[in-house]
Amino acid sequence: MSSSTQNPRVAFQGERGAFSEEAAVKLLGQQIELVPCVTFESLFAAVGAGAADLALAPIENSLVGSIHSSYDLLLESSLHISGEVIIPIEHYLIGCPEASFASIKTVESHLVALAQCSRFFAAHPAIRRIATEDTAGSVRAVVLAADPTRASIAGKHAASYYGGRILREHLEDHSENYTRFVLLTAQDDTTAGANKLSLVIRLAHRPGALHHALASFAARGIDLLKIESRPIRGRPWEYHFYLDLQASTEDEETAAALEELRERALDVRVLGCYRSA
Amino acid sequence: MSSSTQNPRVAFQGERGAFSEEAAVKLLGQQIELVPCVTFESLFAAVGAGAADLALAPIENSLVGSIHSSYDLLLESSLHISGEVIIPIEHYLIGCPEASFASIKTVESHLVALAQCSRFFAAHPAIRRIATEDTAGSVRAVVLAADPTRASIAGKHAASYYGGRILREHLEDHSENYTRFVLLTAQDDTTAGANKLSLVIRLAHRPGALHHALASFAARGIDLLKIESRPIRGRPWEYHFYLDLQASTEDEETAAALEELRERALDVRVLGCYRSA
Repeated sequence: MSSSTQNPRVAFQGERGAFSEEAAVKLLGQQIELVPCVTFESLFAAVGAGAADLALAPIENSLVGSIHSSYDLLLESSLHISGEVIIPIEHYLIGCPEASFASIKTVESHLVALAQCSRFFAAHPAIRRIATEDTAGSVRAVVLAADPTRASIAGKHAASYYGGRILREHLEDHSENYTRFVLLTAQDDTTAGANKLSLVIRLAHRPGALHHALASFAARGIDLLKIESRPIRGRPWEYHFYLDLQASTEDEETAAALEELRERALDVRVLGCYRSA
Repeated sequence: MSSSTQNPRVAFQGERGAFSEEAAVKLLGQQIELVPCVTFESLFAAVGAGAADLALAPIENSLVGSIHSSYDLLLESSLHISGEVIIPIEHYLIGCPEASFASIKTVESHLVALAQCSRFFAAHPAIRRIATEDTAGSVRAVVLAADPTRASIAGKHAASYYGGRILREHLEDHSENYTRFVLLTAQDDTTAGANKLSLVIRLAHRPGALHHALASFAARGIDLLKIESRPIRGRPWEYHFYLDLQASTEDEETAAALEELRERALDVRVLGCYRSA
């Protein structure tokens, strides 16, 4: 990632052992300094505040779709996307070393993790679910308490990091559960070998406005990978569209398409141009 | 809704007093027979099984976006959208009649409701959150237990239905929290006075495919209200697009646009043509 002598400092939301940490290591390798952030707000503020060189934010999950809170914070920030990584979300039931599956009475984890294991809880109605702020943090709490009636749901990585015991594997309802993370930097350079372009555009609420805007890319054979409309708070009948395109701003055709798009849209913001995962 | 002598039977997900029940009454009035369904699967199956005449399903929330599980079940079913209704989601802290705010130690509610009140829990870290299947069902349980240390989060309607005491109002993080529900029937008639058309289309993964498909509507001045792409499970590089248009299939221009669209898309499914809320 960096050729400087210091390892880059990478901010992520959650505690050590979180899925975001797995994603950071998959994208950047082991030679990074991890900067855990309690909230998404502090994650998006970390680079600007000088606490980290890079930030890694979840942006989309294959089951729940776009993570709007991340998009909203990204739009409010001046950060740019410089890379992406996709990891499978596999949930494990983790207790303290003394625990067994039969001893478990309560399971504590992040709300979303609990929601993604609904079949497990339907099959075990006697187990109570406690909602917390963090998957990995719940493993830490369960291991520290050394209470064999408590378990947590988190990734495998959290079990080994905190010395928890895995009591059940693959609690997730759907095996096709992936989360896409984007790497954020303060620089708006196009990454070498970039082939993916993420934009947010604002269009007037007028018949054909989106069709007219997309023509800039369609006429040049530039492929659309993702599109989503999102109402703008406080501006009735106006919409943001999130677009992902298979394109690089270093390519002349893409640059021409963007120029044309700027004439047709009320606002165009390039979130980043980077290598697809 | 129905001119027959019997009140229509309307299925909804949750227990009596749920937000879905509020939505059903807002759309159809008090003269309906409510059919509570434990799961979304049973909700979407209720009409086909003869247990209900109509079903009301949440399809979109202003904070979290599209409710993909409802879209997925709708695509798997043969039901049609015949109406829609939008209600504000306002969360109340509800205890048994003996409870006071100071006596509360645990709060139980549906995962999504707990997630939408994160600021309240951040401000009251000593309160434990218990995740359940249902907002209204949690109020019922709390009132039944008559335990002043337990409270629930649900709509105002649930408090009055079960005789709970409201301890705090407006726990929701964001005031602009609305959920849009669609009314589902077995008949595919266009509703009288319809002005909104919901479609799901499948396109080849080819540059310009969406632009070409949208041209059918843009050329006729038909307004797009919402668009969202969604990867199709098990078919890499193919996408479903959900479209909402300001149009009626009774209109000749719309019918011509749909005919043209069918030639350009791999698949076009009209989910319904109905009056917008």
